[in-house]
Amino acid sequence: MSSPIDFDRYDRIRPIRWTGDALELLDQRKLPFVVEYRNCANSDEVAAAIHDLTVRGAPAIGIAAAWGVALAARGVEASDGAEAAHKLAPAMDRLNAARPTAVNLAWALARMRRTLGEAGPDWRKVIEREARAIETEDLAANREMGSLGAALMETGSGVLTHCNTGSLATAGFGTALGVIRAGVAEGRIARVFAGETRPWLQGARLTVWELQQDGIDATLIADSAASHLMKTGQVQWVVVGADRICANGDVANKIGTYQLAIAARHHGVKFMVVAPSSTVDMATPSGDSIEIEERDPGELFGVGGTRTVAEGILAWNPVFDVTPHALIDAVVTEKGVVERPDTDSMCAMFVD
Amino acid sequence: MSSPIDFDRYDRIRPIRWTGDALELLDQRKLPFVVEYRNCANSDEVAAAIHDLTVRGAPAIGIAAAWGVALAARGVEASDGAEAAHKLAPAMDRLNAARPTAVNLAWALARMRRTLGEAGPDWRKVIEREARAIETEDLAANREMGSLGAALMETGSGVLTHCNTGSLATAGFGTALGVIRAGVAEGRIARVFAGETRPWLQGARLTVWELQQDGIDATLIADSAASHLMKTGQVQWVVVGADRICANGDVANKIGTYQLAIAARHHGVKFMVVAPSSTVDMATPSGDSIEIEERDPGELFGVGGTRTVAEGILAWNPVFDVTPHALIDAVVTEKGVVERPDTDSMCAMFVD
Repeated sequence: MSSPIDFDRYDRIRPIRWTGDALELLDQRKLPFVVEYRNCANSDEVAAAIHDLTVRGAPAIGIAAAWGVALAARGVEASDGAEAAHKLAPAMDRLNAARPTAVNLAWALARMRRTLGEAGPDWRKVIEREARAIETEDLAANREMGSLGAALMETGSGVLTHCNTGSLATAGFGTALGVIRAGVAEGRIARVFAGETRPWLQGARLTVWELQQDGIDATLIADSAASHLMKTGQVQWVVVGADRICANGDVANKIGTYQLAIAARHHGVKFMVVAPSSTVDMATPSGDSIEIEERDPGELFGVGGTRTVAEGILAWNPVFDVTPHALIDAVVTEKGVVERPDTDSMCAMFVD
Repeated sequence: MSSPIDFDRYDRIRPIRWTGDALELLDQRKLPFVVEYRNCANSDEVAAAIHDLTVRGAPAIGIAAAWGVALAARGVEASDGAEAAHKLAPAMDRLNAARPTAVNLAWALARMRRTLGEAGPDWRKVIEREARAIETEDLAANREMGSLGAALMETGSGVLTHCNTGSLATAGFGTALGVIRAGVAEGRIARVFAGETRPWLQGARLTVWELQQDGIDATLIADSAASHLMKTGQVQWVVVGADRICANGDVANKIGTYQLAIAARHHGVKFMVVAPSSTVDMATPSGDSIEIEERDPGELFGVGGTRTVAEGILAWNPVFDVTPHALIDAVVTEKGVVERPDTDSMCAMFVD
């Protein structure tokens, strides 16, 4: 229908660079003011960078950890993969512990371990190839999701996104932001809005900067202005990522996602969730069984170095919320699109 | 039904103090870290304090301006009120221009002008009495609204509020926060939550501090956590103020109010608007005819002195939104409660 997307035109940022000798990680704590890669010469430096949020975003963390294993291998002598796996186990455990709740981290390390266990004398080459594969597969999945998601939109659509789900959070291109990149490239998306995403301001600090680097105009709004924006008719789709997608299509994602879904339904705006199929957890029947992580209330007491709230104030800081499947119009993974997700349609797509 | 409310127990803050010689204004720009009154010895100092947001909140601005007229009178010799009014006109014009969009400012000055025009040789005493009356009537209206609004709540209710509608924004007690004060005093309210209210953070900087001063526990949340909060069942009412209430019951208020109303309806949480009857504008048939003020996008680029957003980013910063009457369960003024407001019920209450 349309000419092939010029992906590279809209996808210049890479948070993870493998030099052959070291891993360079774009320091996301310093963005958007300083664009600086941090050099990690060994796996413990990678673990530290994951722990201190130099690198963030579930897919990006998994990829960084996979390269961390390749770095750890540098100091190891082993005659085959099984012996190497044994010797690398402590380093891999330290990588795994860097952010214990990130599903993709454990997933990537398990994949490296499995590959290593099956490798022969060339195990060193094999695991470098596997780390590269994890990275390139993520990028390919994102581009596939981008095309699939954008295809759902009519020409001239406006979109609103939340948090950062972009190149910065993945090998490149992004999940929800990948759909936005593809939609802009195809001329389907005419307007992009991004919520600030309190308390960490990933939308304000990262998303609008990332899109700016690729020449995509995005307009920042206060999270609480989303409904008013929808009322003005400027937005036809809300596009977000996911931290976990349940068997019935319920979606756990950054706090504020649920509120956007309610507002979208109220205004007849459509709601799309974009995530790799590794995010789908068919073992969790519904969002009811997800415990919502609550983080330090102190995250609400200021911004950067500026404290804004009096001493002794109480705060409640849930990090995620659950959007029930009934409010979701489409779940997009690299395997395909599930429209109006429920247990039947999710099983049809994700149970072999 | 219940014993009389001990208002003073829950209402210690006064943003405006008349010393007999000067007007002292609690500097709200320095809250919550510094509690400091700014001394205004003449009307131009009051105008400056209104302009630079030392004093904020529509009722508080009106009261400050009224006292500003009393200060301006100090340097004027006149044999009666009409002559004084003529001589005071330039000072009153400067007060009126300090925040041209604040309805209560113009209202209070018009009332002072009218009273002055009817006064005889004792005009100086008359206008001091009128300024005092504007202040005490505001406090009395707030206490009346507090009782009326709290009476709608069942014992053990949780409430969520937005922005700052408290003692700080009025002569004392507050509008929506007055209902919360009364509800806590009566034992009807068991839990109080306040949204941060980006971009100015009035909830984070002012509301939770103000309630803390009165010994009322309030829990701060990110604006985008409101729906998740409602889903947990901790909140039975959203209680907000208003900048303008239309003839059909539509309400213009701080950005984010509309989003809370949609979320409240979705969860079966009730939605209450609290404002003095001077906020009701029967000449505006509905919210459709209200133009929404948009302010400097730069307000979204940081907090305090900390910039969080890259250079060259676009932002959209509407200051107010309109909540349609269909999402409102009760409009509370000092004249009484309008449940499920529409043009008929609003006319019955507000058209003589």
